[in-house]
Amino acid sequence: CCSSFVAAAERSPSFAAAGKKFQLEDVIEAQQFDREILNGIFDVAREMELIEKNSSGSRLLDGFLMATLFYEPSTRTRLSFESAMKRLGGEVLTTENAREFSSAAKGETLEDSIRTVEGYSDIIVMRHFESGAARRAASTASIPVINAGDGPGQHPTQALLDVYTIGREIGRLDGIKLGLVGDLANGRTVRSLAYLIAKYRDIKIYFVSPDVVKMKDDIKEYLTSKGVEWEESSDLLAVASKCDVIYQTRIQRERFGERIDLYEAARGKYIVDNKVLSVMPKHAVIMHPLPRLDEITVDVDADPRAAYFRQAKNGLYIRMALLKLLLLGW
Amino acid sequence: CCSSFVAAAERSPSFAAAGKKFQLEDVIEAQQFDREILNGIFDVAREMELIEKNSSGSRLLDGFLMATLFYEPSTRTRLSFESAMKRLGGEVLTTENAREFSSAAKGETLEDSIRTVEGYSDIIVMRHFESGAARRAASTASIPVINAGDGPGQHPTQALLDVYTIGREIGRLDGIKLGLVGDLANGRTVRSLAYLIAKYRDIKIYFVSPDVVKMKDDIKEYLTSKGVEWEESSDLLAVASKCDVIYQTRIQRERFGERIDLYEAARGKYIVDNKVLSVMPKHAVIMHPLPRLDEITVDVDADPRAAYFRQAKNGLYIRMALLKLLLLGW
Amino acid sequence: CCSSFVAAAERSPSFAAAGKKFQLEDVIEAQQFDREILNGIFDVAREMELIEKNSSGSRLLDGFLMATLFYEPSTRTRLSFESAMKRLGGEVLTTENAREFSSAAKGETLEDSIRTVEGYSDIIVMRHFESGAARRAASTASIPVINAGDGPGQHPTQALLDVYTIGREIGRLDGIKLGLVGDLANGRTVRSLAYLIAKYRDIKIYFVSPDVVKMKDDIKEYLTSKGVEWEESSDLLAVASKCDVIYQTRIQRERFGERIDLYEAARGKYIVDNKVLSVMPKHAVIMHPLPRLDEITVDVDADPRAAYFRQAKNGLYIRMALLKLLLLGW
Repeated sequence: CCSSFVAAAERSPSFAAAGKKFQLEDVIEAQQFDREILNGIFDVAREMELIEKNSSGSRLLDGFLMATLFYEPSTRTRLSFESAMKRLGGEVLTTENAREFSSAAKGETLEDSIRTVEGYSDIIVMRHFESGAARRAASTASIPVINAGDGPGQHPTQALLDVYTIGREIGRLDGIKLGLVGDLANGRTVRSLAYLIAKYRDIKIYFVSPDVVKMKDDIKEYLTSKGVEWEESSDLLAVASKCDVIYQTRIQRERFGERIDLYEAARGKYIVDNKVLSVMPKHAVIMHPLPRLDEITVDVDADPRAAYFRQAKNGLYIRMALLKLLLLGW
Repeated sequence: CCSSFVAAAERSPSFAAAGKKFQLEDVIEAQQFDREILNGIFDVAREMELIEKNSSGSRLLDGFLMATLFYEPSTRTRLSFESAMKRLGGEVLTTENAREFSSAAKGETLEDSIRTVEGYSDIIVMRHFESGAARRAASTASIPVINAGDGPGQHPTQALLDVYTIGREIGRLDGIKLGLVGDLANGRTVRSLAYLIAKYRDIKIYFVSPDVVKMKDDIKEYLTSKGVEWEESSDLLAVASKCDVIYQTRIQRERFGERIDLYEAARGKYIVDNKVLSVMPKHAVIMHPLPRLDEITVDVDADPRAAYFRQAKNGLYIRMALLKLLLLGW
Repeated sequence: CCSSFVAAAERSPSFAAAGKKFQLEDVIEAQQFDREILNGIFDVAREMELIEKNSSGSRLLDGFLMATLFYEPSTRTRLSFESAMKRLGGEVLTTENAREFSSAAKGETLEDSIRTVEGYSDIIVMRHFESGAARRAASTASIPVINAGDGPGQHPTQALLDVYTIGREIGRLDGIKLGLVGDLANGRTVRSLAYLIAKYRDIKIYFVSPDVVKMKDDIKEYLTSKGVEWEESSDLLAVASKCDVIYQTRIQRERFGERIDLYEAARGKYIVDNKVLSVMPKHAVIMHPLPRLDEITVDVDADPRAAYFRQAKNGLYIRMALLKLLLLGW
């Protein structure tokens, strides 16, 4: 998956000319967004934040129907998308059971399922267990498709909400010092985040991870090629004292197979706790894609620099913005 | 199931006098519709097509609540009904988990479940694993019930959308030459279609199927009694060159049990491919109830005569029409 | 669980002063309601009944979003809440799959899940398998939480609808003679009902149950302390001839483990049938929380005194009332 991740960045993005701005057609992978588009999306997300806080409810997407086609369950992501659609007055067809479409017994192709569902809805939000499934769906569908995660592949709305959160919390996206902590080998979030943040200026990234789950070379080489400074460190306190953002991630047990001993060693190594908090600058923040286990201790939650639940909420605004842009344009 | 299928046709349909037209009370089985009612439903379906293409959204069923009570999953059918309701401004209560109502542990009867759900909604769309369950539900409920498939029994909205598709694609329903291909013994779709199309004039039906899944005698006898010409053929090309509609179906593996060898022989025997397409008249179409495996090759999809995805979409219009008729009348 | 049930009654309820009336903040347990609040809720439920019977649909909760977070399935309760929200013009995010949030593999705490979901919705309806989960959720959430059942703990909306039904059916709540029949040891419904009805005057309760599932001492002592008369009886006919309400419950097989013999003996002992009906006063009613097996025979259903389906429907009005009160106030 690794080399294809960076290689994909060179492909043409899913945008088409529409007046002066580009029309967003699908959301398939983090790589499709350049800095200008990112900033455009973030401006719309800010507008969405204002709409959401107005409790009387928007009718912006009144009459539009979104299908959430989830081939594997992901309650958190699904509820976030469905909330986004409903907060804008749109309606939802939902299934957490989409594997039934393509069960071994019936054997229908993804393409045939998409051709059926596009007849019932105006936009498809798809979660799939296979890398590349979102691109296949988008090639087939005549309506917009949003990738809500396709296996080990991409989860672009998570990447967007992460960058948006840094901008909202720190007040800028250039000149950010970012500590990526935890499972850097398997986590698609940190890989996508490293990729996207490289589009901004004067970025410095610190990688802090157990040896068994270190950041892979493709991302390191990509960062170097884009002029992004990076270094590896095993001293979380030293990194925390210098960074604007500490981005903690969960060590994924399922990646260790039988080697529970390695898992246990890795998960206890870099914990964000009050000691880490005490060396962090006042303006800095802690982020986490959630769910968390104990890699951030619960007593950290009360500190205003604990940004992870605000980060989850920002997912709502990013998804509202994407739905608006895909269905109504800029 | 077979003789009861035809016998049921003589029972009184679920219509009650309401002014000059009949008021549709429930949709339980294909046999309840006569030619006049069919044409009335199809007229409303055409109106629904116009409404659906107007993206601003209809409020025709504003304030109505539909419960989709699925005792076995059928994502495709469920989404089609729910889209129909929402396209008309109605709301939906959904469950794919309705077996829980009647689990062995709890042991509630279907009738008790229906009496509860009818208190929460204005119309019930029910899928069940037992033949006759829809009729039982309709007898109990004081609100309309639509049968979305009850085991090996009936799936009347599929039958309606099939006949509607023939009318839309060919431009008429009298004088149709129809080739029914594939699993004619077990497929309730082809049986219902044969039954309904017999209500029109000058119909000719060709049965093309492996010997192990031939059309059963009850339907043949019924067609003869109604003056419909039919014949069996093993020459798909010859049939395709003469027909207005080739209706292909999937050979259902689950019907063959241990006899995988018989299944493999049957499924490869009659494939609709470009060779079949090349002998078909310009105006003819290929239909399929979906999902398909390889009984229609993918390269056929690009031909304008491949009508199966339009057919699936017509299911939306038929279901919109039925919801409108059951809730608001003609 | 038993002593904590009564002890909890002394804790401060989830109300906050708001002008002259109390503002309802969460619905966690039956014990939180005093007589004045109960009557206030029942008045609103009556208004809701009028709204629901006006088929054009209310927009009272337009723009509000309810999340139904069900950690164990309960289709009946979920549909009732979702119908309540939609009948008032509100929208719903639904999951029957919430265990995924806290799966062993991912290990997220309930508190973290709640902090995420509260960002997507305006009110949370939660069903959980652990006693006390609803209180934990309410402590965490900054939006209202309704307990839709937490394991062996509480199911307060069931208790409210039971008392409301007695009032609606008999025309008063003081001076009621109530027969509680069936599984009185394990049924949280009968325990909550005994607790709540004790807030009214001149109540007399008869307990009629097999010896293995008798009412526990904590409730008996509580009733005595509140001046409620009660007695145990093994003569269902004698009790039925004196009561305003016979509240039948299901013997829960799952409580008997391997002792199927004890279960079979218990379940057949007190059946409500036409013989029971024949001795009941004309104005009396039979209630049941549903689902029922054969502890009320089907031939009883046709009698106007069979109130159990009206009781289920009253659950809709109670839930509409609570949603209105929690989101809009009195």
